Amino acid sequence: MASTAGKTITCKAAIAWGPGQELSYEDVEVAPPKAHEVRIQIYYTGVCHTDAYTLSGKDPEGAFPVILGHEGAGLVESVGEGVTNVKPGDHVVALYTPECKECKFCKSGKTNLCGKIRATQGKGVMPDGTSRFRARGQDILHFMGTSTFSQYTVVADISVVAVQQDAPMDRTCLLGCGITTGYGAARITANVEKGSNVAVFGAGCVGLSVVQGAVAQGAGKIIVVDVNPAKEEWARKFGATDFVNPTKLPEGKSVVDQLVEMTDGGCDYTFDCTGNVSVMRAALEACHKGWGQSIIIGVAAAGQEISTRPFQLVTGRVWKGSAFGGVKGRSQLPSLVQDYLEGRLKVDEFITHRKTLAQINEAFEVMKQGDCIRAVLTMKDE
Amino acid sequence: MASTAGKTITCKAAIAWGPGQELSYEDVEVAPPKAHEVRIQIYYTGVCHTDAYTLSGKDPEGAFPVILGHEGAGLVESVGEGVTNVKPGDHVVALYTPECKECKFCKSGKTNLCGKIRATQGKGVMPDGTSRFRARGQDILHFMGTSTFSQYTVVADISVVAVQQDAPMDRTCLLGCGITTGYGAARITANVEKGSNVAVFGAGCVGLSVVQGAVAQGAGKIIVVDVNPAKEEWARKFGATDFVNPTKLPEGKSVVDQLVEMTDGGCDYTFDCTGNVSVMRAALEACHKGWGQSIIIGVAAAGQEISTRPFQLVTGRVWKGSAFGGVKGRSQLPSLVQDYLEGRLKVDEFITHRKTLAQINEAFEVMKQGDCIRAVLTMKDE
Repeated sequence: MASTAGKTITCKAAIAWGPGQELSYEDVEVAPPKAHEVRIQIYYTGVCHTDAYTLSGKDPEGAFPVILGHEGAGLVESVGEGVTNVKPGDHVVALYTPECKECKFCKSGKTNLCGKIRATQGKGVMPDGTSRFRARGQDILHFMGTSTFSQYTVVADISVVAVQQDAPMDRTCLLGCGITTGYGAARITANVEKGSNVAVFGAGCVGLSVVQGAVAQGAGKIIVVDVNPAKEEWARKFGATDFVNPTKLPEGKSVVDQLVEMTDGGCDYTFDCTGNVSVMRAALEACHKGWGQSIIIGVAAAGQEISTRPFQLVTGRVWKGSAFGGVKGRSQLPSLVQDYLEGRLKVDEFITHRKTLAQINEAFEVMKQGDCIRAVLTMKDE
Repeated sequence: MASTAGKTITCKAAIAWGPGQELSYEDVEVAPPKAHEVRIQIYYTGVCHTDAYTLSGKDPEGAFPVILGHEGAGLVESVGEGVTNVKPGDHVVALYTPECKECKFCKSGKTNLCGKIRATQGKGVMPDGTSRFRARGQDILHFMGTSTFSQYTVVADISVVAVQQDAPMDRTCLLGCGITTGYGAARITANVEKGSNVAVFGAGCVGLSVVQGAVAQGAGKIIVVDVNPAKEEWARKFGATDFVNPTKLPEGKSVVDQLVEMTDGGCDYTFDCTGNVSVMRAALEACHKGWGQSIIIGVAAAGQEISTRPFQLVTGRVWKGSAFGGVKGRSQLPSLVQDYLEGRLKVDEFITHRKTLAQINEAFEVMKQGDCIRAVLTMKDE
């Protein structure tokens, strides 16, 4: 590997040239990492709804041309000056939520939302304001500080964590987003109490991982709510005790009514994993008066707003949110990998589809189908 | 006093015969307390916006005829069978938020919202489903389980607390609502951390009591927001470090912008004490990303809703509410009285107007003026 260090690498990437277009599988030049940057050979990447959302053009902050992708695992190829947290050969997961351990946010002890490189990450460039990607003679933007839809990518050193070498990378890549987001939301953000009643709206990768987190916390009832009846089997496989299909309720009975009845007054914790603002409201209002907490995890479409009567909050319900499950990537991700290795956290079961990077557009298509939880891309050339 | 025990007492009350009408000062018959009930001779009562709201007819749950009033202090005149927590002669404060110490809510350790008599209290009757008040030959409803606009009232034994005899009752009556609501919201619901930055929207009795609670917790900046410039002096007197008048900001600068700038990123805790849903939104959005908490205390008009982008919560802000400051009346009110007696909690300063019960309609009028914080009524006949 040392042979490529310090040199530009030409490899394949899936480039999003414009909103609503198919991704283009083509050559990209990846410049060497500058100070406090890390170049990673990506081995596997998941495909997530957030990538599709930005590609669709609905994300008001989406900019093009860009290399998307944020659930990636691979090997460190080389590091820039001053990098001490990883070294060439390390097995790593890319972190779209970085952790600098120095900023006001990291030092607060209250949040995982590191502020150090937020501005440049949001603009699609590295912390020095430039890009490491070039194709067709022009700069290509980075995405979420990770850009894992490329065989090689460059990230800030605070945006990567080394994990256990015995953990297969086609699994650890999924800990870069959805699974960690759900599992962490239950264990860290909500810190679900033993014996408490939980409702999870939406049984995708995130929702099913909330279920796993609730199981790990010793929750009582774990009720999954989804309009797709096929999700009941999934939900129960991951530990749900009950399943509610809002479209199958008796005439005039809302999902809130149903959940309040099933839990003798309301849920102790509810989680929205749908991104639908009406569902977010139902999730709040299904909480128990006096103490029920509702955690928003799903990302709503641009311009959409949540609403409720303030009385819902004055009578003790709490409305909060979670990003990346409240997990501090560098400090805490290895413990999730350990949970996986020791069988406490299911990951394999999520992988319903496998594709190559060249087949990425097919992966985006299957993601829209109800039977797809996660599609994992193999990055190697066929 | 023993002479009246077991007998119906005829005394003066201010009766609300219908929505939007003036209160009528007239004779009312107050039946003796039944089992687990307490008859109180009210000495002083505050007049609160909630009374005015129900009187206006805007409260969809308001029913008439009724005896309003919920900030009352007095002496226990007699008790019904089975009452053990108070005895005749005790100095007491009426509690519109009861505390039974037995229900799911009281036992949860997470809320002060006792559920024991909620249904009957909401209907304006005693727990047995009947009223203790009669006037003009008909039953008169109770209000908030307290009905302090009467020289004598009957309440459930879980709706009253005995307090220190050396605390003047024209002050302790105000601990029955506004002051406790604000002070408790800062100390119990939010549990404001030492050194944190706080913003309080609305500088009435509740808001100024939030300021006092924030001072007691050792907050850093305590910023009061009010459109009435006269409130700046009030705010500073109670311990505010800064005052913002949203109508005096430079063109194009919102109160959220102003607060975020003053606190280097947003407030750690904000409190809405206005009941205005637009202000509630601003209060949330002025919170610091990652951990800022906004507490809704104000009561919004019927049908009004709060809204925001879910991103505000996903990025770590928390939206919650507080009723009666999270204070458990029977367990915790005496400690607030002690804070008053030892000079840590200002109460006297709130009393800007004094009236007699016969002058109650004037008290409602002065409450609408900006220079009135609290009007206290003396219940004795002139």
